[in-house]
Amino acid sequence: MDMKRILITAGGTSEKIDQVRSITNHSTGKLGYLIATKALEQGIQVDYITTLSASKPITQENLKIYLIEDTQQLATQLTHLLETNSYDAVIHSMAVSDFTPATSYSIEAFTEALNQQLAQTNLPVTTEQLIQLIEKSEATNTSKISSNTDYLFLTLKKNPKVIQLIKQIQPQTMLVSFKLLVDVSKEELFNVAMTSMKKNNGDFVLANDLQSIQGDQHLGYLLDHKGNLVGEATTKEQIASLILTALNTKGVD
Amino acid sequence: MDMKRILITAGGTSEKIDQVRSITNHSTGKLGYLIATKALEQGIQVDYITTLSASKPITQENLKIYLIEDTQQLATQLTHLLETNSYDAVIHSMAVSDFTPATSYSIEAFTEALNQQLAQTNLPVTTEQLIQLIEKSEATNTSKISSNTDYLFLTLKKNPKVIQLIKQIQPQTMLVSFKLLVDVSKEELFNVAMTSMKKNNGDFVLANDLQSIQGDQHLGYLLDHKGNLVGEATTKEQIASLILTALNTKGVD
Repeated sequence: MDMKRILITAGGTSEKIDQVRSITNHSTGKLGYLIATKALEQGIQVDYITTLSASKPITQENLKIYLIEDTQQLATQLTHLLETNSYDAVIHSMAVSDFTPATSYSIEAFTEALNQQLAQTNLPVTTEQLIQLIEKSEATNTSKISSNTDYLFLTLKKNPKVIQLIKQIQPQTMLVSFKLLVDVSKEELFNVAMTSMKKNNGDFVLANDLQSIQGDQHLGYLLDHKGNLVGEATTKEQIASLILTALNTKGVD
Repeated sequence: MDMKRILITAGGTSEKIDQVRSITNHSTGKLGYLIATKALEQGIQVDYITTLSASKPITQENLKIYLIEDTQQLATQLTHLLETNSYDAVIHSMAVSDFTPATSYSIEAFTEALNQQLAQTNLPVTTEQLIQLIEKSEATNTSKISSNTDYLFLTLKKNPKVIQLIKQIQPQTMLVSFKLLVDVSKEELFNVAMTSMKKNNGDFVLANDLQSIQGDQHLGYLLDHKGNLVGEATTKEQIASLILTALNTKGVD
């Protein structure tokens, strides 16, 4: 099958802690850039969601770039595009924050909030009490965290899984997801990648380990939804080709 | 006095949470870039400490660029340069992280650690108990935070104040520091800026408020060590000129 139009996400999201600080997921966006560039060479129309600081393909016909910062903006942009256009494939290479900052306390303020939460109860502290503490004090975030304390407590809440929107909105598209782990066995890497692909209803997953990435040297395994190893690559360039070839020959059956 | 050699820091530091996430202080480095560019035009030799993602002056004779990521690397680089060279002035415009991540817990792990810490004590919880908890479990940070929980607790420890190294190592240099607050009165801004300049033994402080910064529009006040308003600027370009003029005419007396 020759693809006509695809959607690529690339780069890493940033979640604001306050007006001057963020939690940032590192990703150069290089892999997404290479996939987009190859796809454009093949005459495929590319919609590209990325961040300001990530590498981007040069401006050209057939390429539309959409900038986002955080997970919420990604979800909104992704939903809009998936509802408006039809894609042969979605390649979701963006490193998305699993968590977003909820509250920040100086250690003194945290001690106080904790004691207020625990008033008229006994030890041990329960997880539910701590969750209530977070939920209650959320949205009291100040504009800039004071540096007038020796320790900070930062609480973070899980973000909704943006990737799950993709097949919900467009069940017929082919979805390529990515799983990055750190220093695990190949077996564990494949197992975790397969579990994540199934949860997201994906068609392919590119499994990789941070220990095997250095500049353009990048060991990656492409698995299909049945768990077959479609191919193995040792550079970002090869990974890009591997993914596009798999999609063009439609490995899904 | 005509300056021969200055040291500029610019951009924002990033502190690693794990191998794929950081807490980043936002700063484009644009102001440092403008100061460096003007200084180079005046024939001043510039040593420039910055980050990979910040704006940088173009490569040229008289300019040396040193890249750092986190506060620790900044301290090391700054110490080395100050011990090796003599500077007429140090312009410290880098946004430096006040805190560095110490430990991260899932809410379940935090509940457990907290109860262990509180065993055989009574409520209320004390700040000292929480500090002990942080100090004990530090350095148990894992390579990548698991996303297998709904809430995270992140603890952060105060970083040493890098700016205080400058006059300790090189008491005769002129030090320009920056104070950025968010949405405060001019009076509070000046007070906080003066207090911070005195603490760091600075000669000038550029006081600014995030609410009055938008692109190149950038309201800034330059104060000297006696609290005199040396000048006021409304663009980054003007701020750069203001600082260099003040240093060249040696406002310190």
